[in-house]
Amino acid sequence: MELQLAYQSHLQRYGTKYEALYHAVRETIVTGLVPYGAKLPSSRELAATYGLSRGTVNQVYDMLAAEGYVTAGVGSGTFAAFLELKAGREATDLAAIRLSAWGERVARATQDSGRAFSAAVGGADAVRFAPGLPDAASFPQREWARCLYAAAREQLRMERAEAFAAQGHLPLREAIAAHLRRSRGMDADAERIVVTGGSMQAIALLAQLLAGADDGVVVEEPGYSGIRAAVAAAGGRLVPAPVDAHGIVVQGWQAKLAFVTPGRQYPTGAVLPLERRQALLAWAGQRGAFVVEDDYDSEFRHRGRPVEPLQVLDEEGRVVYIGTFSKTMPPELRIGFVLLPLRLVRPFVAAKRLFEPHPASLLEQRALAAFMSGGMYERHLRRMKRIYGRRFALLGGLLREKLADRFEVVPSDAGLHLFAWWTGTSEAYGLYREACRAAGVEWSDGGSDMAPGHRPFACFGFGHLPEERIREGIERMALVR
Amino acid sequence: MELQLAYQSHLQRYGTKYEALYHAVRETIVTGLVPYGAKLPSSRELAATYGLSRGTVNQVYDMLAAEGYVTAGVGSGTFAAFLELKAGREATDLAAIRLSAWGERVARATQDSGRAFSAAVGGADAVRFAPGLPDAASFPQREWARCLYAAAREQLRMERAEAFAAQGHLPLREAIAAHLRRSRGMDADAERIVVTGGSMQAIALLAQLLAGADDGVVVEEPGYSGIRAAVAAAGGRLVPAPVDAHGIVVQGWQAKLAFVTPGRQYPTGAVLPLERRQALLAWAGQRGAFVVEDDYDSEFRHRGRPVEPLQVLDEEGRVVYIGTFSKTMPPELRIGFVLLPLRLVRPFVAAKRLFEPHPASLLEQRALAAFMSGGMYERHLRRMKRIYGRRFALLGGLLREKLADRFEVVPSDAGLHLFAWWTGTSEAYGLYREACRAAGVEWSDGGSDMAPGHRPFACFGFGHLPEERIREGIERMALVR
Repeated sequence: MELQLAYQSHLQRYGTKYEALYHAVRETIVTGLVPYGAKLPSSRELAATYGLSRGTVNQVYDMLAAEGYVTAGVGSGTFAAFLELKAGREATDLAAIRLSAWGERVARATQDSGRAFSAAVGGADAVRFAPGLPDAASFPQREWARCLYAAAREQLRMERAEAFAAQGHLPLREAIAAHLRRSRGMDADAERIVVTGGSMQAIALLAQLLAGADDGVVVEEPGYSGIRAAVAAAGGRLVPAPVDAHGIVVQGWQAKLAFVTPGRQYPTGAVLPLERRQALLAWAGQRGAFVVEDDYDSEFRHRGRPVEPLQVLDEEGRVVYIGTFSKTMPPELRIGFVLLPLRLVRPFVAAKRLFEPHPASLLEQRALAAFMSGGMYERHLRRMKRIYGRRFALLGGLLREKLADRFEVVPSDAGLHLFAWWTGTSEAYGLYREACRAAGVEWSDGGSDMAPGHRPFACFGFGHLPEERIREGIERMALVR
Repeated sequence: MELQLAYQSHLQRYGTKYEALYHAVRETIVTGLVPYGAKLPSSRELAATYGLSRGTVNQVYDMLAAEGYVTAGVGSGTFAAFLELKAGREATDLAAIRLSAWGERVARATQDSGRAFSAAVGGADAVRFAPGLPDAASFPQREWARCLYAAAREQLRMERAEAFAAQGHLPLREAIAAHLRRSRGMDADAERIVVTGGSMQAIALLAQLLAGADDGVVVEEPGYSGIRAAVAAAGGRLVPAPVDAHGIVVQGWQAKLAFVTPGRQYPTGAVLPLERRQALLAWAGQRGAFVVEDDYDSEFRHRGRPVEPLQVLDEEGRVVYIGTFSKTMPPELRIGFVLLPLRLVRPFVAAKRLFEPHPASLLEQRALAAFMSGGMYERHLRRMKRIYGRRFALLGGLLREKLADRFEVVPSDAGLHLFAWWTGTSEAYGLYREACRAAGVEWSDGGSDMAPGHRPFACFGFGHLPEERIREGIERMALVR
């Protein structure tokens, strides 16, 4: 299995490779990133990934086995064993904890960050087509730094967080509303916007607020694993809706909520046509349901006419619009927002306020408000549009030219990744993927975003890759036989 | 009624007093801070509070009435009417929304930030004994600014948020663990610490994780309203436990979870004696329950021997310890943490990850880690201890000397506020409080933290007040007859 380790930060902390690996692996087990019973990478794999000797890795595994964090089956590998064997002064069986029903569902859900990418594996020189990463070199670092510094000085005024900030810093909400009105033609105002800690907080709060026990909730298939995890945790009943080349296929679902990505289906990139949008809204109206529009990646349109958000068509106040800055600002900045129908503002703010009566990131909210209202955000977007447009065209051309026998690229007009179906068998895909990895190229393939037995596909993120790196990656792939 | 308005920020935004007041009042109604049907302040009160003419306030109320946000009963005042009258293209009755059961509970809960304080009312010169506010003048602003700037530069490296950061930035967790070991004698390690967005996020997640439908949850009476709101939202059954001069009175509750403040009961300040601590842990052991120790205000001990946290006595892994930086760092910084029994780490991290797969405040977490591991935090605490110690002694002395006929100060050794019972009737208290307010002194009295019909009390926060302001405040109170 592939394992994300915080090896580098532990190495900085502990100084020795042995200790760093020990703590990094132990942490994945204690925190449940590696579930009980899951197989850990072989010592050979781990040694190769982190540039360690196999002896070091074996020593670490031995120590973890002695402490009961892992078990070693003879000839069969190493397995996470934390739950059963880490006996100590505490009773360790989970049953004795008696979590709430919600707690049980959350603990069971094997959510992982579906849009994330394993940055730990592969060599230093590997070309990683990781989706959703912006270009670092072109970001206006100085301007953003000035905004952050100014916001830090505001914090030093030592005042208590604003009374209203559970909904989000007002100037930021106003800047977002102005941006949505100007760039997307949306009927947006600050009163209906709530700032969230990334789009996932918005998704999880909406699922919990609207989807009760056994309520049907429509999710796209394939789709984003975070949405499925949020619905499952809330106790909702997942209603998977197939996606074709035009996006979600609208049906008369028995459901009271639907999560959709009409602007650019995740992960296929399909744009939902007008008739389907209207059918979706008609369905919501008939059933008294809400539709959550997750607009995760629509800032960059490379060709074709602009597509209005679904929210613009909504006459009945049935659409909740989710936006994010994760694709346009430094990825570490976790700021998202919802634009709500008026009647959902109160319940949503109450839900947000329960967890965060004062917001956790007022400093960054303030900096972003200044960055937007000073015109720097729009200027940055215009510049990135040109840069990303060139990379988009280059990557699409190269995939079609050099890899058409392996991948069928799905046409797309926007975004920071290209989606392609694998043309062969699952077995052939697995072999090819591993061979490419060995040759120093990686991409994302949905992994847990997918139902088991799905048709293999690849997401090629290009936002962060200079043109020569894109060329290099595709050339390496073309050489793999 | 008392109304917190974001008047100043709206004034900056809109420029005119009329527009600022209009938007500020409308926002309180739309976001539900003023619930449907609640009476708004009279135009006279509002005019006095914000230094406006009554004509301006009446104009604003007329406009809001015309738009359906308020209704005016003849001679009886102005009432929030948003839900019924703000008719438009959207159906507005809440029943039609069909929230989840959780959503219904959250929307019903009239949680307000129990530890907050109305900063908007009273004149500019008023002495405000607001609890929980640190001293601005003594904060090492430059050192903290340097930490924030360095953390901002880290963000500009444009990397994706650390894979493990759902649990919190590792160096911060290690700095917290070292601090707890050194200053509190606790058995703490980074693996069992999760960083949260303020202590309320920890409280709400724990309630939801552990208290299922109709599970009994012990809460202190009087106690923190945020805890009650979290338990109610989770669907738990509130089991109020009386507090006497020594803190919570332990009984054989039918419950699976208890929220307590043994280090310094909120709000009375009582320290739980050893026998009661042992009884509490014995109860938890017998019932298989968990005890959440909310250590909201224990950094500053002014006299007497140090009290170990309840967590130190815990042999069975039944105590969850919650700490916060809200009393020692700039109040806008919302960073709290939990130290969990090992077996709760996985479920808690899973719960946190559902809402925030990447943390919302990595920049500030990184800055705080540097501030702590560089020794600046400890040095700051030592310095503040001296300053707060003097203010504590001064305020206690003055209250006993000048106001003993009105307030009975409860003895206390620590913290940033003094608690005192009112010696007279509720009616007399209300009159005295209003007269003091007119004379330019305010304090907190729990408000919604209390059950109806409770005995009046006052919390005098002194952390942020220089000694001359403390004297001034008490002198004003002594002059009120």
